[in-house]
Amino acid sequence: MVKALNIVPFVSVDNMMRLVLHIGVAQVLRDLAVYIEADFRRWPQFDKIARVASHSDTGVIELMPVSDGVEYAFKYVNGHPSNTRAGLQTVTAFGVLSSVDSGYPVLLSEMTILTALRTAATSAFVAKTLAPRDARTMAVIGNGAQCEFQILAFQDIVGITAVRLFDIDRTASVKAMNNLDKNGLDITICDSAEAAIEGAHIITTVTADKQFATILSDNMVGSGVHINAVGGDCPGKTELHRDILARADIFVEYTPQTRVEGEIQQLEPDHKVTEFWRVITNDAPGRTSARQITLFDSVGFAIEDFSALRYLRDQLQNHDFFDPLDMVADPDQPGDLYGMLMRAGTGEMN
Amino acid sequence: MVKALNIVPFVSVDNMMRLVLHIGVAQVLRDLAVYIEADFRRWPQFDKIARVASHSDTGVIELMPVSDGVEYAFKYVNGHPSNTRAGLQTVTAFGVLSSVDSGYPVLLSEMTILTALRTAATSAFVAKTLAPRDARTMAVIGNGAQCEFQILAFQDIVGITAVRLFDIDRTASVKAMNNLDKNGLDITICDSAEAAIEGAHIITTVTADKQFATILSDNMVGSGVHINAVGGDCPGKTELHRDILARADIFVEYTPQTRVEGEIQQLEPDHKVTEFWRVITNDAPGRTSARQITLFDSVGFAIEDFSALRYLRDQLQNHDFFDPLDMVADPDQPGDLYGMLMRAGTGEMN
Repeated sequence: MVKALNIVPFVSVDNMMRLVLHIGVAQVLRDLAVYIEADFRRWPQFDKIARVASHSDTGVIELMPVSDGVEYAFKYVNGHPSNTRAGLQTVTAFGVLSSVDSGYPVLLSEMTILTALRTAATSAFVAKTLAPRDARTMAVIGNGAQCEFQILAFQDIVGITAVRLFDIDRTASVKAMNNLDKNGLDITICDSAEAAIEGAHIITTVTADKQFATILSDNMVGSGVHINAVGGDCPGKTELHRDILARADIFVEYTPQTRVEGEIQQLEPDHKVTEFWRVITNDAPGRTSARQITLFDSVGFAIEDFSALRYLRDQLQNHDFFDPLDMVADPDQPGDLYGMLMRAGTGEMN
Repeated sequence: MVKALNIVPFVSVDNMMRLVLHIGVAQVLRDLAVYIEADFRRWPQFDKIARVASHSDTGVIELMPVSDGVEYAFKYVNGHPSNTRAGLQTVTAFGVLSSVDSGYPVLLSEMTILTALRTAATSAFVAKTLAPRDARTMAVIGNGAQCEFQILAFQDIVGITAVRLFDIDRTASVKAMNNLDKNGLDITICDSAEAAIEGAHIITTVTADKQFATILSDNMVGSGVHINAVGGDCPGKTELHRDILARADIFVEYTPQTRVEGEIQQLEPDHKVTEFWRVITNDAPGRTSARQITLFDSVGFAIEDFSALRYLRDQLQNHDFFDPLDMVADPDQPGDLYGMLMRAGTGEMN
């Protein structure tokens, strides 16, 4: 890692891809799940707020800060469902890890790829606890950018062997199947969401439209399944019929944020939900019966990005997948910013 | 400017210094004041929130987002008064300008230097309206990193010709005087704050300690002056005795933020203050008499950073003071993030 105080290591998209391919996607997903679990286990230590969103007609731009008192992280992330029509990503992201002690940034990274990885790792880490013990088949409804990452994480962390795909755009399902054709999974493309969930123990919904949608209606969902609802993640954007919510035991990341953004925005503000960190710290029950419907109403929380940036920072101790970025002014005399500027003009730069 | 969607222009500290020296510090301050005034005049158009702060024992890390519906900006900024003892900056910053339409970042920049410039430009732009018309002498109490920028902005925008410096660390005052020795100002180093404000029409306080301090006590401040209070900018950090506040007409940037961070945190939450944008849009009176004490309780608001980033973006149309940064993933097919990652491994990168 770079040591000069004014230099911040920057992980570009290219370097992120090199790092992930070097370590291996499955290994990164496993590693991220370990880092995320470690941070969920110390949940009360974090200084948390719901993310700060700026909404427009076309989408949302969000800042997601969090701190454990030693390190501080934030992520910038947008969500623009119509971007794909213009050849752009629906979601792009970047983030920063900083030292709380000095306030200096210590890492800047692309997080479009890292977010896709951490979202999948979080889903699988949660499902490992909540899904039926013998879950082997997962339906994935919505086969966009997040789809393959979800499938690989569930294969590796939960033990899924069969995947049933559905997307209103069949080419998206074909893309996902082709991308995963060497991964040893039994993959089926289905003609409807209803067909996709037939026989599935886990149902992952990860569609992108910014509107109240009903990807799953109540009669489609049988008992005993685990629903991993990833796509509903901002006000006005939901995927499940509210009758499903009423039948399910609902688990969330950070309640104040999920009340605004998650599937539960359809419910009364006092509807019982369980923050998942309580389950893994044995403070609250997870799955208690085989017939129970468990629902992870996932919207993505800042602690998961904090974990991902911690992981990345640790990997950079051993791998040179970064560029040094001259991001912080560093005058010889801390109070002499103007003098530094003037000396730059005379060639006496420090 | 760079046109590829995945490439974000990045202005490093070195490039910021080159740009500022190329244009000239005084010209940049004048230009920034114009951009800031333009944005203050359309204040109601902005989607505004008080900045999002994460406090620790040693300092604060803040995110400052704002949007006018077309562009979105945020700044990351820390404030760590004890940093100077470790050879670090008290304040470092960087920021991003984005397109609201797509959510894509269009500019990343260092903002330690840019914040120093925009803070000084804001102070001078406000004082041009609120200070006594014939103000020629300014006292500057606190002669750290912001001091010279304040003085140059007031020289250029307000017409200050004489400066009276005081700092508890005399070497800071000497540094400021030496840095400005070719700028045609009549500069005096004083032995106390009381001595510094003698005969001053404008009093700028810009000290850094994070504690309730009394840089100015009530009996020190005569009638008719304009106080530019810059240093008190977070909870628990103030510079003026509350009796001065009671005698002054108080002008602020964004009231909800200043109530928490500014000098007025010492007052009742309903104490009358005027948001300065109302003065320049003729919605509220500014200075109405020669004996009035006007106080700009400045804490720094996101719109000023938005203005500064807009200015920087516009300058980069004509100047190549940036590096291209591969910050946003750009797959050939927007929904095929995983495929992009896999193809990177086979050398088929797009």
